[in-house]
Amino acid sequence: MGKLLIVGTVAFDAIETPFGQTDKILGGAATFIGLAASQFPVSTGIISVVGDDFPEEYLDLFKERGIDISALEVVPGGKTFFWKGKYHNDLNSRDTLVTELNVLADFDPKVPKAYMDADVVMLGNLHPNIQMSVIDQMAKRPKIIILDTMNFWMDNALDELLDVIKKIDVLTINDEEARQLTGEYSLVKAAQKIFTMGPKYAVIKKGEHGALLFHGDAVFFAPALPLEEVFDPTGAGDTFAGGFSGYLASTENMSFENMKNAVVHGSNLASFSVERFGTERLVSLKRTEIQKRLHQFRALTQFDIELQ
Amino acid sequence: MGKLLIVGTVAFDAIETPFGQTDKILGGAATFIGLAASQFPVSTGIISVVGDDFPEEYLDLFKERGIDISALEVVPGGKTFFWKGKYHNDLNSRDTLVTELNVLADFDPKVPKAYMDADVVMLGNLHPNIQMSVIDQMAKRPKIIILDTMNFWMDNALDELLDVIKKIDVLTINDEEARQLTGEYSLVKAAQKIFTMGPKYAVIKKGEHGALLFHGDAVFFAPALPLEEVFDPTGAGDTFAGGFSGYLASTENMSFENMKNAVVHGSNLASFSVERFGTERLVSLKRTEIQKRLHQFRALTQFDIELQ
Repeated sequence: MGKLLIVGTVAFDAIETPFGQTDKILGGAATFIGLAASQFPVSTGIISVVGDDFPEEYLDLFKERGIDISALEVVPGGKTFFWKGKYHNDLNSRDTLVTELNVLADFDPKVPKAYMDADVVMLGNLHPNIQMSVIDQMAKRPKIIILDTMNFWMDNALDELLDVIKKIDVLTINDEEARQLTGEYSLVKAAQKIFTMGPKYAVIKKGEHGALLFHGDAVFFAPALPLEEVFDPTGAGDTFAGGFSGYLASTENMSFENMKNAVVHGSNLASFSVERFGTERLVSLKRTEIQKRLHQFRALTQFDIELQ
Repeated sequence: MGKLLIVGTVAFDAIETPFGQTDKILGGAATFIGLAASQFPVSTGIISVVGDDFPEEYLDLFKERGIDISALEVVPGGKTFFWKGKYHNDLNSRDTLVTELNVLADFDPKVPKAYMDADVVMLGNLHPNIQMSVIDQMAKRPKIIILDTMNFWMDNALDELLDVIKKIDVLTINDEEARQLTGEYSLVKAAQKIFTMGPKYAVIKKGEHGALLFHGDAVFFAPALPLEEVFDPTGAGDTFAGGFSGYLASTENMSFENMKNAVVHGSNLASFSVERFGTERLVSLKRTEIQKRLHQFRALTQFDIELQ
């Protein structure tokens, strides 16, 4: 059983979609990553920060799933990071209505001793300086460091972002952001350019159009499962990252061939995440449901052509 | 060796992309479909019409590939259908600059006797009345009838289109057009609605994002091969249709499992088509290149997760 260290936000989200809206519910990158990763036999620790307005039941949720939250700092008198967003009708774009950093503004991550030798480090979307600080605190080089980021950091902390990207193995990023980061429209060329920045692997996420895994000249693709209805895309990318990193950590096999499986597991879990608001579906998810959908994934993608 | 009957345009195209532009070159749906299908061991006949401005060398091109053009009518004194288009920078959208129907305006398709018992009928994008006329002339019900269409006919001949859709087995259509035809945003729901219109199979083409094959509750997905550069998307959908129908006709196996392979072959050939202007790449294509890329398709999509 491998060890997975996650850094990222633990937050309140308020979400509006064409299908309804929520009050403040559990959200944040580390939340989705952790819940997804906990579907695999892996020791998972989360580094994050919340205020003392963060409900005990949410903390219990992590604990029940065996997630180590000893490095989830609760700031007395502080308020938890809050994001409010509204999705457009096609669910492919959204407007951010409110961002309150709150306790996140002064977040100084502390890697717990027990996780300084983690096999896999998953750096969720956060300021690149925080991501760098986690890498610097590791007692030994992890087998693999995965980093997720977004356009906000390219616009506001590009130098710091490029510095941390130099130190990682896998960059996960969405298609538009890959284009912004590299200046290449072709995703094949974008991946090649990402390789010159440091990472040996690039996962380019295309939302409802699936995800591409690049390594050298090799490429693997996993579609998103076609769903009758996408209800709430919030956290889909983080759920993917949780499935990807959790599977890698649980198998302790960082080969490209195994990374293909990790991409499929990530896509599979993300297909559940979007079926309900926030973490609702991830929390209720049963192992049998996951297995059943993996069979659907196989039927969706596997064919049998005799090759010469 | 099965028999494939194709109806569609044989045309002159003039194309402008960010990479360059062409004078009048060989184009048209039936052209791309026929050239793609001729990669398989199949008896292929094309029904279409051109003017006497259509060069002998193009006619020879079809003949050299064993395509029966006895039903390719040459109208004395007539001018060949001409389309001119300009692609935008991302190559995902284009403006039509010129459409001259010419001899196509009075096209009355005549199914040659030798093809009245074709196993597969591929109805390329054309007025639905022409598509219907071909079906009506068949001496026996083909094993499978495939129809490709576009939004123009939904806007201008919807009743006629719905009439012919009732009579077919497979509808191939792009994602936006599937949404327009059905009023459903979800492609899963769109496919289900298409099934109520007649077809038992729906292929929804998503351009660079691949193609989905639906049948009942089953779905199969083939990605587009990620390319460093797409040079000219003209004819990609028709090339797909040619690979799809040509493979089905050559195997004489119309099962859903075999249709998956047909989708892969169609996607594979389309990945070549977009590498050069018009039919240039299809014409120069070697069997070894096709096989090599099928191996790439397998590496791109096949994974090996142990399922319970």
